[in-house]
Amino acid sequence: MTRTITLSIAAVLLAGCAALPVTSALAQADPPVAEAPSPNAIVDAAPAADWVEIAPSDLMVMQLAPDAQGKPRRVVIQLMPPPFSQGWIGNMRKLAAAHWWDGTSVNRVQDNYVVQWGDATEKKPLPEGLAVVPESEYMTPIAGLPERVSGEIGDQAEARTEMTYYARQGSEAFPRVHDAYSDYSLFTMGWPVASNDDAKSVWPIHCYGMVGVGRDLSPNTGTGAELYTVIGHAPRHLDRNIALVGRVIDGMEYLSSLPRGHGQLGFYTEDESPTPIVSVRLANELLVNQRPRFAYLSTDSAAFAQYAEARANRRDPFFIVPAGGADICNIPVPVKAYPWVKPAE
Amino acid sequence: MTRTITLSIAAVLLAGCAALPVTSALAQADPPVAEAPSPNAIVDAAPAADWVEIAPSDLMVMQLAPDAQGKPRRVVIQLMPPPFSQGWIGNMRKLAAAHWWDGTSVNRVQDNYVVQWGDATEKKPLPEGLAVVPESEYMTPIAGLPERVSGEIGDQAEARTEMTYYARQGSEAFPRVHDAYSDYSLFTMGWPVASNDDAKSVWPIHCYGMVGVGRDLSPNTGTGAELYTVIGHAPRHLDRNIALVGRVIDGMEYLSSLPRGHGQLGFYTEDESPTPIVSVRLANELLVNQRPRFAYLSTDSAAFAQYAEARANRRDPFFIVPAGGADICNIPVPVKAYPWVKPAE
Repeated sequence: MTRTITLSIAAVLLAGCAALPVTSALAQADPPVAEAPSPNAIVDAAPAADWVEIAPSDLMVMQLAPDAQGKPRRVVIQLMPPPFSQGWIGNMRKLAAAHWWDGTSVNRVQDNYVVQWGDATEKKPLPEGLAVVPESEYMTPIAGLPERVSGEIGDQAEARTEMTYYARQGSEAFPRVHDAYSDYSLFTMGWPVASNDDAKSVWPIHCYGMVGVGRDLSPNTGTGAELYTVIGHAPRHLDRNIALVGRVIDGMEYLSSLPRGHGQLGFYTEDESPTPIVSVRLANELLVNQRPRFAYLSTDSAAFAQYAEARANRRDPFFIVPAGGADICNIPVPVKAYPWVKPAE
Repeated sequence: MTRTITLSIAAVLLAGCAALPVTSALAQADPPVAEAPSPNAIVDAAPAADWVEIAPSDLMVMQLAPDAQGKPRRVVIQLMPPPFSQGWIGNMRKLAAAHWWDGTSVNRVQDNYVVQWGDATEKKPLPEGLAVVPESEYMTPIAGLPERVSGEIGDQAEARTEMTYYARQGSEAFPRVHDAYSDYSLFTMGWPVASNDDAKSVWPIHCYGMVGVGRDLSPNTGTGAELYTVIGHAPRHLDRNIALVGRVIDGMEYLSSLPRGHGQLGFYTEDESPTPIVSVRLANELLVNQRPRFAYLSTDSAAFAQYAEARANRRDPFFIVPAGGADICNIPVPVKAYPWVKPAE
């Protein structure tokens, strides 16, 4: 099947708030009246049916020690759904149930790379029964995906992705493909993944905020006890080399703004202070009224497609040259918190 | 001219230290003995002749107020060379000479986006004689580049870039192009730039750490008094829409780790604390013994080409699947400080 999707500029005339105004005063002025919405306005206008509430059992809640002013620092991680990375995620469920992370710490903060947490002593015994996950699990066979999804990927392997069409500015013979690390990248089941033209497997992508599993040298794949999140430009060279298990959907700033470490690879030195982790729990282990609630915009929805296109072709009044493309990590999946207010810019 | 560059895997067998070891103890162990160098080892081994010392007049030194522990926070910005963005950079030289930024502050910290600084009051008079720079200056005509550079770009417009060849994994008919935002991207004169197949102009790229000029709505292009730097995934949609004038080459952590702002667009609210800027000076205005000295690895050097290739195809023992490509913002130009020790990981 070969698709011919023509991007109608008229159909997606967009406008919204300025991206880099000179001053806070301007930033807080009313947005200009516009005929078509900005990417954020598209998200705000998405119908309730386009949002997917995340199950409490897929939310991992990490309480860091309060900051210097005594303010709480809560980080919420959304775990990837089956069939992605379930060996490690199963281990993480056991570690959380055992309260294993309580009393561990954030030990590494490397600028423009990762924040990493776990047991700095290397001596804390792990719970019994953790799986040893093989490297083959870094990739997910398309056959293991729901039929709807695998069919979509099969189509896209032939036709390239929707985003490729959005990004296409050149000739049919040489379109502007947007991914340097795979034949194509796309969103599926709410997550950024990549694949190759053989369409045999997909793998998750190391975008900002994604959470992965620290490991030793191959063939070690890590247990899930040592975790990191991306705090800089997407380190895509880690794709297919380390397990990705989720993403930070709330409280990212409490990790990304931590003081950088000055030991090798950004580990803290003896003179520097790891940030204590008070507790890590799955939300379904918390009292009902203490559970965070989040929803993400379905990446199968029309609203998401419109949002992604608008991210790739900004036509807000601030912009004078739409990019004509976007890489997948510059299209973060929108998430909102209960009560269902609009997500922050 | 059509080039046929074949990537010899044997020629670039690389090895080095692990990227995401489980623990600090491992990270601080000796790297494994290896036959070929890691990207960092390539940089360390580059001959002195491959390094370019940056003129003091192209270094802007920003002293933030000391941190809560009283430690100094110095940020050093390298200004772009002619012919790039010289209208704004000329203004910045005047602003620095007038000590205009002294007493201003960092007013905006938006997670995964930018840190922005300047005059929060909007009332501080600007020096006389600042240029009003037209939007056309966001792009630089190739005719204005040194002949060596424009010739190289002309070649690359036909042949695509070296990086495209490095990244080529597929057929001749459909190589894996690595840039979603332009027909190609490349390094020239030490900077990441993009261009299109018409090869008429190039423009700088919004990678992590790049410094740009805040502005109001078009046709305003900003003066250079209000500046920002990228602290997250490359916001390439800003390319050709805002002037880029330099990059942070030292002290980036003092900006990237600042507390996030919680007003619109990450501006600080009244309850939050801007970070005071004590002074901004060009290094040539400082006493000779107080001038910072930095050098960058020439992007025309063989060492840089080898480094870039190694970034795109990691073969350190830690990696099991080389990416086969890289986007330009995942290949930061190496910088080192005097005394000329090796750059930090």
